[in-house]
Amino acid sequence: MNYNCGKIAIIGGGSWATAIAKIVVSHTHHIGWYMRRDDRIADFKRLEHNPAYLTSLHFNIREIFFSSDINKIAEAYDTLIFVTPSPYFKNHLKKLKTRLRDKFIITAIKGIVPDENVVCSEYFHRVYDVPYENLAVIGGPSHAEEVALDRLSYLTIGCSNIEKAEAFAELIASEVIKTKISTDVLGIEYSSVLKNVYAIASGICSGLKYGDNFQAVLIANAVQEMNRFLMSVHPIERSPYDSVYLGDLLVTCYSNFSRNRTFGTMIGKGYSVKSAQIEMEMIAEGYFGTKCMKEINKHMHVNMPILDAVYNILYEHISPQIEIKLLTDSFR
Amino acid sequence: MNYNCGKIAIIGGGSWATAIAKIVVSHTHHIGWYMRRDDRIADFKRLEHNPAYLTSLHFNIREIFFSSDINKIAEAYDTLIFVTPSPYFKNHLKKLKTRLRDKFIITAIKGIVPDENVVCSEYFHRVYDVPYENLAVIGGPSHAEEVALDRLSYLTIGCSNIEKAEAFAELIASEVIKTKISTDVLGIEYSSVLKNVYAIASGICSGLKYGDNFQAVLIANAVQEMNRFLMSVHPIERSPYDSVYLGDLLVTCYSNFSRNRTFGTMIGKGYSVKSAQIEMEMIAEGYFGTKCMKEINKHMHVNMPILDAVYNILYEHISPQIEIKLLTDSFR
Repeated sequence: MNYNCGKIAIIGGGSWATAIAKIVVSHTHHIGWYMRRDDRIADFKRLEHNPAYLTSLHFNIREIFFSSDINKIAEAYDTLIFVTPSPYFKNHLKKLKTRLRDKFIITAIKGIVPDENVVCSEYFHRVYDVPYENLAVIGGPSHAEEVALDRLSYLTIGCSNIEKAEAFAELIASEVIKTKISTDVLGIEYSSVLKNVYAIASGICSGLKYGDNFQAVLIANAVQEMNRFLMSVHPIERSPYDSVYLGDLLVTCYSNFSRNRTFGTMIGKGYSVKSAQIEMEMIAEGYFGTKCMKEINKHMHVNMPILDAVYNILYEHISPQIEIKLLTDSFR
Repeated sequence: MNYNCGKIAIIGGGSWATAIAKIVVSHTHHIGWYMRRDDRIADFKRLEHNPAYLTSLHFNIREIFFSSDINKIAEAYDTLIFVTPSPYFKNHLKKLKTRLRDKFIITAIKGIVPDENVVCSEYFHRVYDVPYENLAVIGGPSHAEEVALDRLSYLTIGCSNIEKAEAFAELIASEVIKTKISTDVLGIEYSSVLKNVYAIASGICSGLKYGDNFQAVLIANAVQEMNRFLMSVHPIERSPYDSVYLGDLLVTCYSNFSRNRTFGTMIGKGYSVKSAQIEMEMIAEGYFGTKCMKEINKHMHVNMPILDAVYNILYEHISPQIEIKLLTDSFR
């Protein structure tokens, strides 16, 4: 018999969480939804849409059980989809007392757990004892804004248990969401972190007035750097051209929806990290991703000149001009 | 002793020809330059820039020997760089009586020789008896407009004789032009034709209002399709992430400078091929490239769904909606 995902809940209230909630509830007609703030839940119920993100997406409120108590949600649901920004991930989990090991845990967090320097699936495994076969990841080129606009998107569900991947992939597939499956959980998670680092690099070069010719060389080199890292951290046979790796990198580096690219552009134009963050009213996830990946690579020693350059610019205050100039000499 | 390129001439008067002429003459301080039209040569001499393309690029006229007689140029120069649009390539050559086999022939033509369905280097070899070691190609992500603006660009020189590739690569290298070498002449030529086909596909999807998420999936699939073809037509070990393949594809599919993408966008929006061509006042090279590649692949039988879709839209008048919808089902 095929695996059944059971009752599904969303953990997190941002734009990607909202897009995924909409996809799931359109198939299941019921979801649980944990959001940290009660006032936001109240506004959501009154307005029938998320008051802060993807506000054009209407929800049938009767199909949603909201709670600001993560334990209530975790207890009552079988499949938990985590979609919080990675920097706040550990804080949300601190309040959690429910046993997770028998849940189907899907992470759609594109980041590394801060201080721990592990990807989220690994964190669930180590700290919450969730077996690998109960850990899945959602990847693929997928700006939430476009998913909300019903623009055709391709998602990949990664899980070492292929039946579980399949079950969730089939559940969310539709005319506008095409799904595929993979067993490369680690590869998908790491590539979704690295692409944000490369999107910042891409923005920095654009801010420094490098042109499209160079941008293409930068991204071709980023693909190579990403593959080197993936083959080192998790050496399995994968097709690095699959849209879950290459496509996700491209959309993040080239799209105007990309917050990481915008952040990089401001740095390239001469903003300090602090003023770029204030100006954007948010923190680009790749900012944290850069630090985590740098830490992780300290033990891996993979040749990652783009990661190093972005790290030096963001954390060592070395001028973007100098770092990118050095980078240009290392490129093929 | 290293190979010496001798006296260098440019064949062709378009924007890429003009950019390459500028690069070469800034090192050699003399070039020959064949242009078809005498009035254009006269205007060039008077204005000290190409009257029709990259008009902001100033040339020292005393460093250029112009002629509208291709034989005069071919006789007097050792290295001939062909940069004509591929559709007119054969016409230019018809007038040629000079023996080419001892010349160093470099092609920067991104196209297939019409009717013959072979890449330009192959045509020179078959029809003009030029040995492979005297045939080179210039590839890489390089919008002429950006080269003219002195924006850092990476060019790859391909030649089966690595010393000759090296000699020309070193000759044109500068602060803003980085060069590398390769022996994969065929691979570089075919990929530079295919990328135009994919840029049209990219434009068509954009014209049909597919979003960035899908665009990334399309391009990830285009990379795979291109590799399948290259491995079939010329199965050597190559790194398909190198900027000469992947970078060139990216810049053509994503850049606003790309004429092929613009052409595709108009087709996607519902323009007929004819009205799109009239509106653009020029013919996008990928339009011809699509037909040639389709012909070539009739004998190769490589699985190329994107090429097929673009061909059906441009030549079989099948609606873009239908073709792209079919394509979306074939994607990974």
